[in-house]
Amino acid sequence: MTTKNRYAEYDSLASMYDDQGTQRHDIVVEQLEQLVLQHLPKPARILDICCGTGQIAQRLLQKGYQVIGIDSSEEMLRYARKNAPHAEFILEDARFFQFTSTFHAVISTDVGLNLINTLEELKRVFQNVYQALRENGIFIFDLYVEELCIEDWQTTKIQGEAKENNAWINQFDYDAETKIGCDRTTRFELIDGQWQRFNMTFNWKLYSITDIKSALAKVGYTDIVFYNIKNDFGIESSGHVGCFVCRKS
Amino acid sequence: MTTKNRYAEYDSLASMYDDQGTQRHDIVVEQLEQLVLQHLPKPARILDICCGTGQIAQRLLQKGYQVIGIDSSEEMLRYARKNAPHAEFILEDARFFQFTSTFHAVISTDVGLNLINTLEELKRVFQNVYQALRENGIFIFDLYVEELCIEDWQTTKIQGEAKENNAWINQFDYDAETKIGCDRTTRFELIDGQWQRFNMTFNWKLYSITDIKSALAKVGYTDIVFYNIKNDFGIESSGHVGCFVCRKS
Repeated sequence: MTTKNRYAEYDSLASMYDDQGTQRHDIVVEQLEQLVLQHLPKPARILDICCGTGQIAQRLLQKGYQVIGIDSSEEMLRYARKNAPHAEFILEDARFFQFTSTFHAVISTDVGLNLINTLEELKRVFQNVYQALRENGIFIFDLYVEELCIEDWQTTKIQGEAKENNAWINQFDYDAETKIGCDRTTRFELIDGQWQRFNMTFNWKLYSITDIKSALAKVGYTDIVFYNIKNDFGIESSGHVGCFVCRKS
Repeated sequence: MTTKNRYAEYDSLASMYDDQGTQRHDIVVEQLEQLVLQHLPKPARILDICCGTGQIAQRLLQKGYQVIGIDSSEEMLRYARKNAPHAEFILEDARFFQFTSTFHAVISTDVGLNLINTLEELKRVFQNVYQALRENGIFIFDLYVEELCIEDWQTTKIQGEAKENNAWINQFDYDAETKIGCDRTTRFELIDGQWQRFNMTFNWKLYSITDIKSALAKVGYTDIVFYNIKNDFGIESSGHVGCFVCRKS
């Protein structure tokens, strides 16, 4: 992977992201357990794409799986190697990685794939995952989906907090034409007695369940199932998140 | 007035406050015209308490009135003297000023009186105004009132904006026990290439229409009338603001 391809802007998010508490990761792993893990042998090989700071990888390791994580942010992986010292982490972009028939399961959590902003690129990810899976291997990923999010995303949202040594403000605006939610965070941090400013912008593409199912089917996946995290798992905090499970056959 | 008494914390608000655009002041003066000004001779003497940056004073001057403004922020008055060079401005706290039977009307706009946090202190303001009015003089002031605001104030609100050279975040929390809305603003400004942080906290006390009417009557005012700015004047932007008009007789 060339530096040019890297999603380097996620570097600046790593410390905040890693600091979000552990409970939400526990919940995600519980879902993975219910949907996928209970059907896998141990030690199965799992690939975690867009693995972030390795919180999920560490929990899978503790459950007895072999885990490889890929992410395109070096800073995220710096945290990941601390959080999950026995997993393997590779600096790789989900759109460009290549493994051949290696994994029992591929996972992607925390709606990382919404950060891929075109269906063409997302389909390339699906193809890379397909190639990386063994026969009958399972691919599971969560996603903000249009059917669940569209109403909520159409109002501009402001969030923020001011503490003694740091402050942040986040504004979220949805563009109905491109179906992209622009998520801008401005952060101030007191470093060596001076306030520093950091800006982060993330574009979340909103895909429809129909488009995702169709793209998965075209790549060759079967047994494609969609879950509404809130309704099917009773998890209120994941209000607008959906989860897809499918199989390489 | 001693420095100790001064609401000096409003100094830091002056530049933002002065920068809020002119249209809202035009609307306020229109209301004053309908309710009070049309009944006054010109040049009547008007006292503007909590006059802020003098935007209303300047408009009254242009209409041919004599205006004295008082405010307890020196910085507000610095702007006021620029905005209304022909008005007279005095550094005075509404709770402590003394004039005797001088004015045809006393006004207080932009909910300044909600910043006075006890009914006892507010009653003292009403007494000072009473003393400052001529016989038949009119007192008009606007206020956030409990009956209109309580529902809206009970949800925590976050607002903010990040621009190239400045950013601010505001959080508003209401305490049902003290009936005080705490309004905290953290502002960052790029000054000579360095980010500086400023904090401002304002406590807005929520009074009921009943309490205000009763306090006015006890001081000696008559013809006390309450207006709902939104319903009675059709001004949506003043959604939760009420206006009291009364007379010294």
